[in-house]
Amino acid sequence: MLEELKQDVCRANRALVEHGLVRLTFGNASGIDPKRQHVVIKPSGVPYAELEPEQMVVVDLSGNVVEGDLRPSTDTPTHLLLYRHFEKIGGITHVHSRFATMFAQARHEIPCLGTTHADHFHGAVPVTRPLSQAEVEEAYEANTARVIVERFAQLDPTAMPAVLVAGHGPFSWGRDAAASVENAIALEAVAEMAFGTRVIDANAPDLEQHVLHKHRERKHGEDAYYGQDR
Amino acid sequence: MLEELKQDVCRANRALVEHGLVRLTFGNASGIDPKRQHVVIKPSGVPYAELEPEQMVVVDLSGNVVEGDLRPSTDTPTHLLLYRHFEKIGGITHVHSRFATMFAQARHEIPCLGTTHADHFHGAVPVTRPLSQAEVEEAYEANTARVIVERFAQLDPTAMPAVLVAGHGPFSWGRDAAASVENAIALEAVAEMAFGTRVIDANAPDLEQHVLHKHRERKHGEDAYYGQDR
Amino acid sequence: MLEELKQDVCRANRALVEHGLVRLTFGNASGIDPKRQHVVIKPSGVPYAELEPEQMVVVDLSGNVVEGDLRPSTDTPTHLLLYRHFEKIGGITHVHSRFATMFAQARHEIPCLGTTHADHFHGAVPVTRPLSQAEVEEAYEANTARVIVERFAQLDPTAMPAVLVAGHGPFSWGRDAAASVENAIALEAVAEMAFGTRVIDANAPDLEQHVLHKHRERKHGEDAYYGQDR
Amino acid sequence: MLEELKQDVCRANRALVEHGLVRLTFGNASGIDPKRQHVVIKPSGVPYAELEPEQMVVVDLSGNVVEGDLRPSTDTPTHLLLYRHFEKIGGITHVHSRFATMFAQARHEIPCLGTTHADHFHGAVPVTRPLSQAEVEEAYEANTARVIVERFAQLDPTAMPAVLVAGHGPFSWGRDAAASVENAIALEAVAEMAFGTRVIDANAPDLEQHVLHKHRERKHGEDAYYGQDR
Repeated sequence: MLEELKQDVCRANRALVEHGLVRLTFGNASGIDPKRQHVVIKPSGVPYAELEPEQMVVVDLSGNVVEGDLRPSTDTPTHLLLYRHFEKIGGITHVHSRFATMFAQARHEIPCLGTTHADHFHGAVPVTRPLSQAEVEEAYEANTARVIVERFAQLDPTAMPAVLVAGHGPFSWGRDAAASVENAIALEAVAEMAFGTRVIDANAPDLEQHVLHKHRERKHGEDAYYGQDR
Repeated sequence: MLEELKQDVCRANRALVEHGLVRLTFGNASGIDPKRQHVVIKPSGVPYAELEPEQMVVVDLSGNVVEGDLRPSTDTPTHLLLYRHFEKIGGITHVHSRFATMFAQARHEIPCLGTTHADHFHGAVPVTRPLSQAEVEEAYEANTARVIVERFAQLDPTAMPAVLVAGHGPFSWGRDAAASVENAIALEAVAEMAFGTRVIDANAPDLEQHVLHKHRERKHGEDAYYGQDR
Repeated sequence: MLEELKQDVCRANRALVEHGLVRLTFGNASGIDPKRQHVVIKPSGVPYAELEPEQMVVVDLSGNVVEGDLRPSTDTPTHLLLYRHFEKIGGITHVHSRFATMFAQARHEIPCLGTTHADHFHGAVPVTRPLSQAEVEEAYEANTARVIVERFAQLDPTAMPAVLVAGHGPFSWGRDAAASVENAIALEAVAEMAFGTRVIDANAPDLEQHVLHKHRERKHGEDAYYGQDR
Repeated sequence: MLEELKQDVCRANRALVEHGLVRLTFGNASGIDPKRQHVVIKPSGVPYAELEPEQMVVVDLSGNVVEGDLRPSTDTPTHLLLYRHFEKIGGITHVHSRFATMFAQARHEIPCLGTTHADHFHGAVPVTRPLSQAEVEEAYEANTARVIVERFAQLDPTAMPAVLVAGHGPFSWGRDAAASVENAIALEAVAEMAFGTRVIDANAPDLEQHVLHKHRERKHGEDAYYGQDR
């Protein structure tokens, strides 16, 4: 079942290595089928170089394995809960990429300092609160998603397709698995440049609101004129 | 038409990836024909690995597409206006490379701290002022070129083949597309080394004027003795 | 003798280059046989690209060469003494990887600032005291192991499979040579991210104890649910 | 003539790119024949990927081209004068590698903070004084060597096979071209780690003298026991 989605998700997971976003087995990507009944995700702890589409695991939204011989990623409950709350997203990526993770560990949002950022994220990339001891002990992975959802109470996940989990690392999403990887790549790039910008000048200013707005509109707005017509 | 120029521009765009200057689709290179009537530029939002010469877009200096099936880069109006004002340049590159973009976001010029810099740029690489809200809303891309031209009122674009647009990133140029890419590579190298030099010592001094002058003369002056005779 | 172990150790040494952990000949990996009578280690000063299993050197626990035409790594006495004191480890890696070595040179432990760290190291990665002049002159390599063992008086080498030797660099270990390399990769990744996190915020907090504990348990505890069953 | 030396020097120049020490054409390596009458050096401004042994230029110690169709590196007078003063060296490398150049631009020596450094350089890597205007205008490249020789009045170029020219970049040397490249690689590695160490702790201490001495002796001393017998 879902053979095409398995190929997409496998390709997305392999792309994480090709773009330098993961080392060892620190990351995973998933995708949801259009009916939003099944999620395809990377198996846990398997090296990326060996990943094949048929190894992808299919789970339902309650986390039951529907197809696949391997155990799904440990982070599966986080992915599932995000799919349930963010109804417009079709793919999720979680990595421990260098610079995004540094901001997550520092528990600082990634400020919007330039147009590279504005092309992908509408404002500063938010950071969650840390999980309490009870939240960690009770249902760690699901509660990781809950603090993300809590942080997005006033945010639109379409305009802000990424978050930093405090002390942990980034999650990103998009219309499908490939788009979530693209946002993970963009997130790492803007995190690195925000890091360096603030080393050059600790008081470097946020991007002007009118430029932020312009870049969003020209790429994602109703009259977008970036890229080719689909 | 302009088949050779299309090949040059295609090769220049592919070189941006090979030299690590772009991620995703953050960058573009263009070239102008010797009669300065037509510009060949990268299509918008197309992955670099797939770029072929026949996909390059030919536009006239007013921005009308003269040949090509794809939409030209969103930054085309910036390129066109620069070609009109900087009459000796034959190629332009725009990227969001890491360290040059950090300086652009910090809105600091790149100081000339060594001979690597002096071999390519005659003094500190300037940064533009930010665009006003009216400039962004009216004609964002053309006005990006206007603030560059404004910044160059007292500067020679031949001696200073690069600029940082505040909050955005670098533009570089040269006698053709390949030379503009070479200047983008050099810009990124000197930005990275300026960054690190000032981390080691915030008061690291500018290169002595007589060394700056010497390096320019031995490479670009009338009695240049660097490289081979052409 | 020990042909399989030679292949494992050779592969581990070559992996050091593939993962960017060594330059020139700054590093070595070894493995011990299950009876803990012989250690297989890299020959000294041989380029990694040329390493073949039959070049690996077999030594006994007193350092006598039992098989092999080449001189064993200069660091052999350090490896041997660690195998004698840390009875549950089967492989050791020593490198001068960038960020771990920066912490070793600064003589600072690597603080545990996030879950990437917690997945591999149970708390801050310790740093030894410097060796005295007498210790260096008498038996430098063996005494390097002795200051490590001294530092682990209150630490479990299974829960903390790495150490920084002051002014020198990291040693890591694991159940076999491959696992010791994996821990060297993880150590470098967490050192780089700790470095950057503290640049962003010098007061970035340590990871909460309950998250540290959770990550250890879910990956290494009795009811571990990370990865596949072996 | 000197066909073997041409191959060695060509290989050394290509190695500069393979080890990430040069971008564009910022670097060159040379070697001197055993009779110390002729020097083989890279041609000026030729891309490294195209370099072939027959393109190498042979010059005598006065700088006259003895063989070769191309102009020799602009830095040839620097190399020649160093060969005349440092009589035990057989190869020289000049690059603008990232971290070594940052220290040269900051005009700070590279402190000896660890054993990686001690294995290659016996103490802090020195930096020259800047050239005066007269020195630059009169004979820039030869005077670059003169300030190096001046800086080495109290130093042994065998024990300290590298120097930073203020505002410019590193030169390194060794028994042949390959050894000079190896020292350039080691220099860049120790520069990067010294940079990071001082970011972690601005007061990180120099390596203890007894460890510095030990590492030199075990690798380069009369009773050296590092590497294989030659």
